[in-house]
Amino acid sequence: MFCGAQISLYPMCDRFVEVILQGLERVREIKQVRFETDDLSTCVIGPPYEVFQVAKNLFQGAAQTGVHVVMHALFSRGCPGEPDDPICTPCSPESPLATPELLDLRSLPLSNIVVAAQFSLYPLGSGTYMETIYRQIQEAKQEGTYSKGKHFVSRLDGDLEQVFGTVYNAFQRASSEVGHVVVHLTVSANSPTAKKST
Amino acid sequence: MFCGAQISLYPMCDRFVEVILQGLERVREIKQVRFETDDLSTCVIGPPYEVFQVAKNLFQGAAQTGVHVVMHALFSRGCPGEPDDPICTPCSPESPLATPELLDLRSLPLSNIVVAAQFSLYPLGSGTYMETIYRQIQEAKQEGTYSKGKHFVSRLDGDLEQVFGTVYNAFQRASSEVGHVVVHLTVSANSPTAKKST
Repeated sequence: MFCGAQISLYPMCDRFVEVILQGLERVREIKQVRFETDDLSTCVIGPPYEVFQVAKNLFQGAAQTGVHVVMHALFSRGCPGEPDDPICTPCSPESPLATPELLDLRSLPLSNIVVAAQFSLYPLGSGTYMETIYRQIQEAKQEGTYSKGKHFVSRLDGDLEQVFGTVYNAFQRASSEVGHVVVHLTVSANSPTAKKST
Repeated sequence: MFCGAQISLYPMCDRFVEVILQGLERVREIKQVRFETDDLSTCVIGPPYEVFQVAKNLFQGAAQTGVHVVMHALFSRGCPGEPDDPICTPCSPESPLATPELLDLRSLPLSNIVVAAQFSLYPLGSGTYMETIYRQIQEAKQEGTYSKGKHFVSRLDGDLEQVFGTVYNAFQRASSEVGHVVVHLTVSANSPTAKKST
């Protein structure tokens, strides 16, 4: 079983290098994951919870600088083209997940950072993948972060902790139905467009 | 049949709004497509060739300003959850594509803009999706743009025209095997990291 992410951070400012490098320094303390960074993205390999923690903390640190920043992350679990890796095995010895560990959004502490996000979910090799997708949209609606459907993606709005919680839960729930699951997430903070429209 | 993209442009500079708005103005001349822009992305609906032209021209204009810029684009065709739309029907009345129209990379004019890219391909609802993916990687190798495999994505390097050509061809070829195909593309120009490593 192989689990991980390709994460890219885009601070829309002249000092973008500083914001990215400071952010990466902050998340290197998270244990149980392995990092590989190049000019396009940072690959994070490890169990799903820790991989999502890296993504969330990286984005949170960048958003707290006040600059307009966007993160794009590809989360993947169970790709048959990837090698097995002991660092990932704590997330599940089986495929698909027998009992997905979920976050209870009502008990999550708020970050007080408002974010806008859109995500898409791809359960691969399954003939009933649309049902799996629709179930996650229903769950996101119940969790209160679902904002609206757009073409090809679902939009989420709310506190950073809540939005990442919904995406993590969708990834976990889909992984209990299908062995190979990919999620693409775009998350934005401090956008001047959002400020104008409120 | 429904075809389109969600495209986001990330100019890493203080004057990012100006670069994005100028870029969007430039591609609004392309006919046969419909645009919807919000604070996260621009949705482009239309036939695949025109949708890819919008993405390529938008990125090219931003890259020509000299700032470090990244584009993320989600291309989708044949999603059963989307409504049928007459603007998309020229790309094919059938599902999957009977005869995909491909670009001959040897005859494409060069843009003289060097880009780094990574992309992932998701043929949905197919039990043999990994074979479809592996075939596109082989084609990219033959086209000369394939640089290396990374976890979850394939890296492409080269001239902007060639790299977009490979991704377009992969999208078209996969669409001749599977009705619902999604491609995620990240493309970067003027990166200070790339300059250092060459």
